[in-house]
Amino acid sequence: MAKPQTVRLSPAPVVAACANLGGKHESHGPLHAFFDRLEPDAYFGKKTYEQAEAAMQAAVLAAALEKAALGPEDLDCVFGGDLLNQCIGTTFALRNVPVPLYGLYSACATMGEALSLAALMISAGFLDRAAALTSSHFCCAERQYRMPLPYGSQRHPTAQWTATAAGCALLAREGTGPRITHVTRGRVVDKGVADPNNMGAAMAPAALDTLRAFFRDTAYTPADFDRIITGDLGKLGSRILLELAGREGLDFAGRHSDCGLLLYDLERQDMHCGGSGAGCSAAVFCGYIVSMLQKRRWNRVLFAPTGALLSPTSTLQEESIPGICHVLCISNERE
Amino acid sequence: MAKPQTVRLSPAPVVAACANLGGKHESHGPLHAFFDRLEPDAYFGKKTYEQAEAAMQAAVLAAALEKAALGPEDLDCVFGGDLLNQCIGTTFALRNVPVPLYGLYSACATMGEALSLAALMISAGFLDRAAALTSSHFCCAERQYRMPLPYGSQRHPTAQWTATAAGCALLAREGTGPRITHVTRGRVVDKGVADPNNMGAAMAPAALDTLRAFFRDTAYTPADFDRIITGDLGKLGSRILLELAGREGLDFAGRHSDCGLLLYDLERQDMHCGGSGAGCSAAVFCGYIVSMLQKRRWNRVLFAPTGALLSPTSTLQEESIPGICHVLCISNERE
Repeated sequence: MAKPQTVRLSPAPVVAACANLGGKHESHGPLHAFFDRLEPDAYFGKKTYEQAEAAMQAAVLAAALEKAALGPEDLDCVFGGDLLNQCIGTTFALRNVPVPLYGLYSACATMGEALSLAALMISAGFLDRAAALTSSHFCCAERQYRMPLPYGSQRHPTAQWTATAAGCALLAREGTGPRITHVTRGRVVDKGVADPNNMGAAMAPAALDTLRAFFRDTAYTPADFDRIITGDLGKLGSRILLELAGREGLDFAGRHSDCGLLLYDLERQDMHCGGSGAGCSAAVFCGYIVSMLQKRRWNRVLFAPTGALLSPTSTLQEESIPGICHVLCISNERE
Repeated sequence: MAKPQTVRLSPAPVVAACANLGGKHESHGPLHAFFDRLEPDAYFGKKTYEQAEAAMQAAVLAAALEKAALGPEDLDCVFGGDLLNQCIGTTFALRNVPVPLYGLYSACATMGEALSLAALMISAGFLDRAAALTSSHFCCAERQYRMPLPYGSQRHPTAQWTATAAGCALLAREGTGPRITHVTRGRVVDKGVADPNNMGAAMAPAALDTLRAFFRDTAYTPADFDRIITGDLGKLGSRILLELAGREGLDFAGRHSDCGLLLYDLERQDMHCGGSGAGCSAAVFCGYIVSMLQKRRWNRVLFAPTGALLSPTSTLQEESIPGICHVLCISNERE
């Protein structure tokens, strides 16, 4: 019998406040009204894109604290990370913030890991309030993972577009708002996909693996959810997930969406297979998803950010691409 | 009043089994008898150094499980990371291990973060058994952070030597062995040191910050500990820590050691300021420190791995170097 991967949180921590921001392309997407700030300057007033990304994380953390009428001194811990080598988006954002940090890396699933660990630690009574914080930046990611920006390289049809976006969610033991009722920790899954321009295909099996574990570990069925929202599988990865899930009797049709598909209008915007990046699922969660729960348009949602655990070095060494997915159940009920 | 950063763990998880391995230079150091395996082949039988590092992590995880007479199916979660871009040492090590992963990044403090989170989650009752897993590899780190290896660049007198080493500690709710009784989460501390060849100086203020928080949050004084062992501050960083701590009335003299100083014989081995790397504190903990506790030569130890949160990009952009330190109290008593 498979080992349980899910923890039912009792008490279930509350999503007390959220803040997000996006860049120019995000401002032209269908979710533009669900952003706290849309910043057309890719430098964010700084000298380099990496400094811009750190400033974006600092900005969403400050904005979320302001919404909750809290200061950094009210926060027990930050759980955060990003895609930059050595996670300098997060560490430099916190250089002047006197709050402890547990630094995380799950590629584009980092927001799922951050929300999970923050929720677990709050539910256990170890922390009163914690922040889940992450980001991505198209210009940083492009030059770090792919090609120098001025080279203007052509993109593959199955490629995804790294969002310039950041999100911060403040979780608390007490308060009103949607609650994180279950977290399911994900395993590293590698089915041998080796094309770094097709990360949706590499991540879809990981999404299925953790979603399968959630439904196995709990009494829920897909029909219990208003939405099942994966992180950045994009168009092709989403199609693969629905097909793989269907073969196992998990019918996600009609209730599945994907952060990478929600963030951009793929008909009008030239984003190929959709959005990606640790900031994509973070910004969609901290804007659209939490808003829809707060307005009670939705009552219960599964949030399943996915990450592709490759590096440029592993690609050059002809390795296949492991994926990971962490799943959270977020509900307006306490369970 | 400063916010507490320390959690007292009750029940206190037990360090049930440990395994470590080192490379050629580690086999010539004073701790050679405290390694499970010393491997002179820097490739570890693989084609690349990065594949070697992943294989090292897989090997120590398998060895620790074997010592505990467990299989991967008995493990609830791995908490791990490494210094490679996108942490591919850990993710590729777990490609064929069906155990959930929370991926971490705290540079050379990663073992401290991994042990902390694993201990917290076990103490809360969310997990029965978890592994803390990390590594570093001189050849990977040198070419990723500094210069191509064949270039043979001269090293700065204040530089430290990245250990080729890995460590895995299995924590459990039940069992016999030393126990993790307290964890103190660290903040990002940046005092403006910008020399990437002097990371000890950059990290010492972070070590002081978290150690100060531990003594502030608990009733302990330095005299209550057989050893206070920082991670990789090296010779210069250790001297800075002792001086800074002394100014605040924290007398570590006579009981302070540093994993970077313990791992090599600085008189005989040409390691300049000492060892470093996520694998350094991990291997010293999983060998020497845990052994001394198991043999009851020591009764209570503070373990304080430190990390320098820089990247080659942040250095080129003339940023100073933030540091972090996570502190654990490990004891043969239950508190």
